[in-house]
Amino acid sequence: MSDPSDFPVSIADIRDAAERLAGLAVHTPLLDSPDLDERVGGRVLLKVEALQRTGSFKFRGAYNCISSLAPQDRERGVVAWSSGNHAQGVAAAARLLRVRATIVMPADAPALKIDNTRSHGAEVVLYDRYSESREEIGAALAEKHGLAIVRPYDDPFVIAGQGTVGLEIGEQCRALGVGLDALIVPCSGGGLSSGCALAMAALDPGTEVLTVEPAGFDDTARSLAAGRRCWIEEGSRTSICDALMAPTPGEVTFPILREFASGGLAVTDDEVRTAMRYAATRLKLVLEPGGACALAAVMSGRYVARGKVVCAVLSGGNVSPEMLSNSLRS
Amino acid sequence: MSDPSDFPVSIADIRDAAERLAGLAVHTPLLDSPDLDERVGGRVLLKVEALQRTGSFKFRGAYNCISSLAPQDRERGVVAWSSGNHAQGVAAAARLLRVRATIVMPADAPALKIDNTRSHGAEVVLYDRYSESREEIGAALAEKHGLAIVRPYDDPFVIAGQGTVGLEIGEQCRALGVGLDALIVPCSGGGLSSGCALAMAALDPGTEVLTVEPAGFDDTARSLAAGRRCWIEEGSRTSICDALMAPTPGEVTFPILREFASGGLAVTDDEVRTAMRYAATRLKLVLEPGGACALAAVMSGRYVARGKVVCAVLSGGNVSPEMLSNSLRS
Repeated sequence: MSDPSDFPVSIADIRDAAERLAGLAVHTPLLDSPDLDERVGGRVLLKVEALQRTGSFKFRGAYNCISSLAPQDRERGVVAWSSGNHAQGVAAAARLLRVRATIVMPADAPALKIDNTRSHGAEVVLYDRYSESREEIGAALAEKHGLAIVRPYDDPFVIAGQGTVGLEIGEQCRALGVGLDALIVPCSGGGLSSGCALAMAALDPGTEVLTVEPAGFDDTARSLAAGRRCWIEEGSRTSICDALMAPTPGEVTFPILREFASGGLAVTDDEVRTAMRYAATRLKLVLEPGGACALAAVMSGRYVARGKVVCAVLSGGNVSPEMLSNSLRS
Repeated sequence: MSDPSDFPVSIADIRDAAERLAGLAVHTPLLDSPDLDERVGGRVLLKVEALQRTGSFKFRGAYNCISSLAPQDRERGVVAWSSGNHAQGVAAAARLLRVRATIVMPADAPALKIDNTRSHGAEVVLYDRYSESREEIGAALAEKHGLAIVRPYDDPFVIAGQGTVGLEIGEQCRALGVGLDALIVPCSGGGLSSGCALAMAALDPGTEVLTVEPAGFDDTARSLAAGRRCWIEEGSRTSICDALMAPTPGEVTFPILREFASGGLAVTDDEVRTAMRYAATRLKLVLEPGGACALAAVMSGRYVARGKVVCAVLSGGNVSPEMLSNSLRS
């Protein structure tokens, strides 16, 4: 076991983030579903971050990061690159803090996501994802205008912000008098999962923390098994989980996951669609594919919940009306 | 002001119901939505009974009623008539209590609702809604087999069970340190609204309690204005709110509403569709038309929420995949 001070984020940082977010982030419910419990033969608690401001957990890390900037940095503004939930989280957090935000988005991103990001008051800079690099464009804007970069996961303040999801889960379980056998967290770069793993290690160290990724994009699962960061080959596979397609765990997040997470699961697109349909028709919750992965892991038996108490983080609900309708038809 | 003992249901009955339901009914969340708050210029808290067992609040009253039966009555079984949420609530409650349930349903009810009711272990008796009376069939079954009738609203135990929604709202508001200006509750026969009105009168008597009904089916609003039970003409109108089409308030529920509710609102089908779409795309919640009425009242300005703190009860989410898809398209 490493010393907690080996890591750039501590439970104290997560508690600080929770204080900053109080009254601004939605304290999302930890839901019971008797129907789901019967189906899997265990108890499944659902942490519904789809009900968070902007429809995903990303607001937490973005707000914690931007609100921690020095006054002169805030005044110059922030920049981020994302085609999805991080864009909306940064835009909404920046507006609340009266900080100018520039978001670099692919020109062919869904109009709805671009509109949503603009509706939060952010300036959107479009780029051609086939000929340009968003990192380079973002870095050039940061350099030119002195903007602070809000990274999607490899930042201690972002990790601490996402870790408030785990802090709330731990506190909600205590209030219910429930101890978790496992916590299953969707994973792309690892901001949410590393933050939650840190929080659970402090609040309930007996809980096994597992990441879940789309099949074919299980770089974190492989990295955890290998004990070092692995890359998946880009371009060779697809997944409906557009939010969970990072090719490798983060440099900052992976050491935390290696220490505090037990391993990683992977779910197929069909398992995710089944979970999305079940969520809409039975749980009455709208989930995006990436947001349904932990539910898919439990329902498919990739995690065997029989006789266990397990929490699944439902991380986001930003799905287009068309994809939601399609998932209802399958 | 009448004496509380004038009424067949008291806050003590509601607290008893809450004890019976503890650990069985879902303690549904009281959600904040910053997006909705900005839209209406007030604070709107959402009590999400769509997340309840069987997808609506009906489980609460059904369970409280059946669990309060004498042992010999339980042994003979129960009967109810309903084409919708009450059927599923009674079936699920009866199964938990190991009581045989017979549900009288129209032969042309959606197959999904009949299947859901059967899936909870109930025996379904189909009837022809054009030539037969479900009340007569139910009463005949009750007579023949000695079954106890679980009424949809005009029963003190059912009202007390639905009143636990109001009890939870009052307790959740206290925990948040929030006082409500108004509580808006969807209304058909008045079981949910009368129970909630009783609870709020005990917990926070300063809160105005308002019913909401579909336009054209606003018998409760008219009855509250007239001070006596009014009937709407049957057959002359339609509404997408299939759960809220009672032609008159209940005999037991109306005196409670007259005493403790301030008045009634009505919303159009278009306002309901807009609320359903907003719920799915922004709130990430699946609502049935009747379950979206209180949200529709707030969003449409039928209730002016500007500067107010208001709670809307989202009473159910049992909508067919087809109707949900249609609402996304509008």
